[in-house]
Amino acid sequence: MRELQKLQLLIDNAVTELQFSPYPAELYEPIYYILSMGGKRMRPALLLMACDLFGGDVEKAVPPALAIEVFHNFTLMHDDIMDKAPLRRGKTTVHERWNQNAAILSGDVMLIEGYKLMMQVEDRLLRTILNVFNDTAVGVCEGQQLDMDFEIRNDVKIDEYIYMIRLKTAVVLGGALKIGSLLGGAEMKDAELIAEFGENLGLAFQLQDDILDVYGSPEKFGKQVGGDIISNKKTYLLLKSLELANVEQSTELNKWINAGSFDNQQKVEAVTGIYNAVGVKQHAEDTMHAYADKAFEALEKLNLPEENKQYLRGFADSLMVREY
Amino acid sequence: MRELQKLQLLIDNAVTELQFSPYPAELYEPIYYILSMGGKRMRPALLLMACDLFGGDVEKAVPPALAIEVFHNFTLMHDDIMDKAPLRRGKTTVHERWNQNAAILSGDVMLIEGYKLMMQVEDRLLRTILNVFNDTAVGVCEGQQLDMDFEIRNDVKIDEYIYMIRLKTAVVLGGALKIGSLLGGAEMKDAELIAEFGENLGLAFQLQDDILDVYGSPEKFGKQVGGDIISNKKTYLLLKSLELANVEQSTELNKWINAGSFDNQQKVEAVTGIYNAVGVKQHAEDTMHAYADKAFEALEKLNLPEENKQYLRGFADSLMVREY
Repeated sequence: MRELQKLQLLIDNAVTELQFSPYPAELYEPIYYILSMGGKRMRPALLLMACDLFGGDVEKAVPPALAIEVFHNFTLMHDDIMDKAPLRRGKTTVHERWNQNAAILSGDVMLIEGYKLMMQVEDRLLRTILNVFNDTAVGVCEGQQLDMDFEIRNDVKIDEYIYMIRLKTAVVLGGALKIGSLLGGAEMKDAELIAEFGENLGLAFQLQDDILDVYGSPEKFGKQVGGDIISNKKTYLLLKSLELANVEQSTELNKWINAGSFDNQQKVEAVTGIYNAVGVKQHAEDTMHAYADKAFEALEKLNLPEENKQYLRGFADSLMVREY
Repeated sequence: MRELQKLQLLIDNAVTELQFSPYPAELYEPIYYILSMGGKRMRPALLLMACDLFGGDVEKAVPPALAIEVFHNFTLMHDDIMDKAPLRRGKTTVHERWNQNAAILSGDVMLIEGYKLMMQVEDRLLRTILNVFNDTAVGVCEGQQLDMDFEIRNDVKIDEYIYMIRLKTAVVLGGALKIGSLLGGAEMKDAELIAEFGENLGLAFQLQDDILDVYGSPEKFGKQVGGDIISNKKTYLLLKSLELANVEQSTELNKWINAGSFDNQQKVEAVTGIYNAVGVKQHAEDTMHAYADKAFEALEKLNLPEENKQYLRGFADSLMVREY
């Protein structure tokens, strides 16, 4: 089996070799620009990994893997407009560097280019793989819509939050693994199992991210502690705390959420204090582990040699942190 | 052969029966809304017409025809954001009625739904038809980009204008006919000929539209005469007049283009006066006829019974106006 890092590098190189039409320049330059921003290329690498695990030809799977990366960057380009984000990975976003219309239209073309790349598979797999791609793409759009809806709602339930992050971030991981496995020759049953593995691992990973924002040591993770708290982001921790809180805690929490101006450190300390008082960390960890367990259950059912399963276990373990 | 009007009606009914996911509502409601605005359903009806002409099953071609209509409305939804248009067909545009983010994201989903509908064809045609759809879709985006580029440029040449309207409006007519003919059982050679017919007819039709804006009688066409002149729209007439004008005429024309405030009727009369002086109407008609001739040449080469060709000739004639 090839190392995941090597697959990421393979994608990174393939991205630089992508060729689009040169004209009209303003339509295609933003595509090269956003693709050159880098990133971990995790989604396309997972597609290649799944193909490899099922004994497929990794090189032949590069175009559909690039399709996943181009699609992912299309969603970033449009999300950045919707979020009015000035920066992505420290660089000016497309709608800021060009203009909003360029970002809308270049994004549209990226989605079409994604389909063109995804179609570079054998005839016998074409319909099956495009169906997975369609479902993945629709899921991501639905997830983004829910994320925006939730920003202006004050009654979001935990189940709705899980449903949203499943669509917005987990489905595309599952979809990439599913497509890769099918390209590698997997039966549909195994393709669905590896998608289940990826989706649940993605959920566990997102919940871990929510926990690390508050409880991760800044030295280890290089992130500002409490960023989500400062921006009132509706994470698992906040939503569950609102459910668990008594009247007094709830009032205090809402006071901080609605505060117009505040000292960042003071807010982070106060909200973390409530999180601790209601014991939300334990709930979050339990839920995270429940999804990680589901991922491992799906993994065990895969019709793969023990060695390949071990590889997948190692990959899953590497994503889940033992110590904060 | 079925009457075009009946095919338009068939599509109109099929559009009302389209079902999308009910949740999240804000993602799918704008899709139902824009599709309910009506319109002539010309593009999907042409797809069905081509299928019928080559002896195909019109009912089976309805999903790909709907794909073309859904795709077309996706472009309208995004174009309206880019053009900051408050109204479409007398109704509030999606980005005004909901908000811009809803219009971006609903449009994105429409493009994906378009692919899902377009995939409802036999396996043996799937790749071929999706390739045509990809080319059409990319062409329309490129055309829209050029249209926006041209708005802020003052040196647009006639060839560039023709290239732009070919991509923005003619390619999708050609694409619809091509897909329909393939579904009807046409050989690729004939599919390409009918696409050539549609593309050139589309160009002729667009040029006719440019002419009618200035020289059409308002009683016959129900349009305000000179709307393009008032809004400085870079039509064939304006661009060619700028090429043909002597220094004096050019100065006068640019004075009207750059005038901040003016009396509409006065501007229309003055600019029309220059159009007449440089004889641009004749040039426009010559070019229009040249494209119409190309369309008829392609038509004659089609491997179709005389009766079916006669039907196509009748359709083309009905689009081209004899008297203004």
